Amino acid sequence: MSKQDVSISRSGGCCTPISVAALDEATASEGAAVFKALSDPIRLRLMSIIASAGAEVCVCDITPHFNVSGPTISHHLRVLREAGLVDCERRGTWVYYWPLPDRQQWISTLLSVPETTALAR
Amino acid sequence: MSKQDVSISRSGGCCTPISVAALDEATASEGAAVFKALSDPIRLRLMSIIASAGAEVCVCDITPHFNVSGPTISHHLRVLREAGLVDCERRGTWVYYWPLPDRQQWISTLLSVPETTALAR
Repeated sequence: MSKQDVSISRSGGCCTPISVAALDEATASEGAAVFKALSDPIRLRLMSIIASAGAEVCVCDITPHFNVSGPTISHHLRVLREAGLVDCERRGTWVYYWPLPDRQQWISTLLSVPETTALAR
Repeated sequence: MSKQDVSISRSGGCCTPISVAALDEATASEGAAVFKALSDPIRLRLMSIIASAGAEVCVCDITPHFNVSGPTISHHLRVLREAGLVDCERRGTWVYYWPLPDRQQWISTLLSVPETTALAR
């Protein structure tokens, strides 16, 4: 792991929350694919380990957190990568992972709710 | 649909975002179940229609948005209800749905990313 500090800036609110407007079919398909990637407890824990690390994470430091095989962990990491939630780079023996905050923030914004929602019933 | 205005107040940020701390297994299982409910494009569109309506929605006004059968829509709505994302009430012939913003905001907060994330690489 190198020592260079990289500041990730994000584009911020990049979509209209579902509490404001109904989704079109294309956005619903895109969003559902991201939710599917996070719909497994192991993948959600993997995502949280990578997102909270504050640095890129070697797969060698991830695997010991789980009682499943290395290939299983690799499979789940590939699903997260294909959903655009993380990226990785192989250096020598190991693969290093880091989060892609734009994608994560996109679905967070999609689900955000105005502080007080007036519901006419 | 009655005319009473109901203001839904929410408990706000109710969990630690995954960008701040890794999830424990119990929270990961709970979160993954909610993401699974949203991992289908039809369910995500259903959720967005209910969340954005600003009023409770009759299932009779939901079904015409989709090219699938009524029982299929009912199945998907039941999945959203079991995930704690919507609730419903039968009145006469029809069932009326409304969003449960606490649950929706919980997963939004879970995925939220600080404005600038410094990643040491």
